[in-house]
Amino acid sequence: MLSNIRIVLVQTFHPGNIGASARAMKTMGLRDLVLVTPRQFPDPEASRLAAGAEDVVDNARVVGSLKEAVVDCVQVVGASARLRSLPLPHYDEPDEMARSLVANAVDDPVALVFGRERFGLTNDEIRCCSHQVSIPANPDYGVLNLAQAVQVLAHEVFTAWRRRPESDYRAARPNTDRAPTREQLDHFHDHLTHIMQRSGFITQPHARTEEQLQALFARAQPSRKELSLLRGLLSSLERGLEDG
Amino acid sequence: MLSNIRIVLVQTFHPGNIGASARAMKTMGLRDLVLVTPRQFPDPEASRLAAGAEDVVDNARVVGSLKEAVVDCVQVVGASARLRSLPLPHYDEPDEMARSLVANAVDDPVALVFGRERFGLTNDEIRCCSHQVSIPANPDYGVLNLAQAVQVLAHEVFTAWRRRPESDYRAARPNTDRAPTREQLDHFHDHLTHIMQRSGFITQPHARTEEQLQALFARAQPSRKELSLLRGLLSSLERGLEDG
Repeated sequence: MLSNIRIVLVQTFHPGNIGASARAMKTMGLRDLVLVTPRQFPDPEASRLAAGAEDVVDNARVVGSLKEAVVDCVQVVGASARLRSLPLPHYDEPDEMARSLVANAVDDPVALVFGRERFGLTNDEIRCCSHQVSIPANPDYGVLNLAQAVQVLAHEVFTAWRRRPESDYRAARPNTDRAPTREQLDHFHDHLTHIMQRSGFITQPHARTEEQLQALFARAQPSRKELSLLRGLLSSLERGLEDG
Repeated sequence: MLSNIRIVLVQTFHPGNIGASARAMKTMGLRDLVLVTPRQFPDPEASRLAAGAEDVVDNARVVGSLKEAVVDCVQVVGASARLRSLPLPHYDEPDEMARSLVANAVDDPVALVFGRERFGLTNDEIRCCSHQVSIPANPDYGVLNLAQAVQVLAHEVFTAWRRRPESDYRAARPNTDRAPTREQLDHFHDHLTHIMQRSGFITQPHARTEEQLQALFARAQPSRKELSLLRGLLSSLERGLEDG
């Protein structure tokens, strides 16, 4: 699915932007990069900015026209900061665009097209697109750097892909401790209540205060280990109170 | 609300990353930048990479510790590619984090903290945080460039802000033509049906074919101008058919 998603950069001026875009793509699981008449490529700046994504740069295809770059695609989304007068179907919301792109990418190639740093895409190039998308931004300063725009839209694509039921993405998680049983929590609550009374904090059973503190600890979701730590603290306090 | 959201960069190594982060922030409506012991700042590279966001760089505060940077904040989210063993509350989903951050930012300052390019945040620095967030990424290559991480999380924050009912963000839209009336559409459908019969495409009233084509045009949502163009085309075809 992700392998069907192509990133196309049209007439990129700064080779560094190609490298940084490749890096952005790779962090989001994308590898298919096509360059339409890049001004200066290959170039050491492209490799340098690619950091660990030089393979994406090295495997990039260079073609002579956007038409050639997307001829096999069933959906071609042009990323454009500037709205054109051509009333192409337009996504205001990148996440909506991404869900559609990922759905189409199940079976067929699709493309996300980025224009020149300064001038974006020409009207002829927009005619090669089925849709446009813009990244909502600060009305007073809304044009993202090219590689930044690639990163944001690649992130939205990866998010859309992850959230599909059939995706096998699993977040790396540290080992979480087991949760305590209701019985262990009840013991803790009783212990806490006992301490509150022994310390003179509450002079008689005060259901509301006890419930509030229990709710606080419930939100913290202590693990068994942590509950153990807390019980140890309460025991020390108890011994201190008995001595005092 | 957005003005209450602070971006904190801890011990940034490359001044260019400070500039690029400032640019990323400004595109997403954020302006409060605090630098904790940056290695090299001020620096021409920071201003150069800031593009039109030099004001954010120039107004950045420099402080000696993360503690100092966030002392007034009610929520401090540490952005971390690497999971630590400290079981701080953790957001797996940047959009979830952003909704919480924006909600807290209604009344009080909050902060999004980014660590060193290579080493992230120390355990002591994570202790200054109330939460952690990571950007889900390619398990084989998942570390975003610092300024890219700032761009992605700033984008999520801006999205969360835009989607709150009280936000006044309005997407810039080109002037859309008026939609046609049902009567105009009916005339068009009649005209189209007439052409289909005159051309021999359908030899008798064929409701299904006509409905399918009508549905297609309905999805295209032609404006009045476009409907006019289509009617003009149908008229030319009609004249051609009469002559032939």
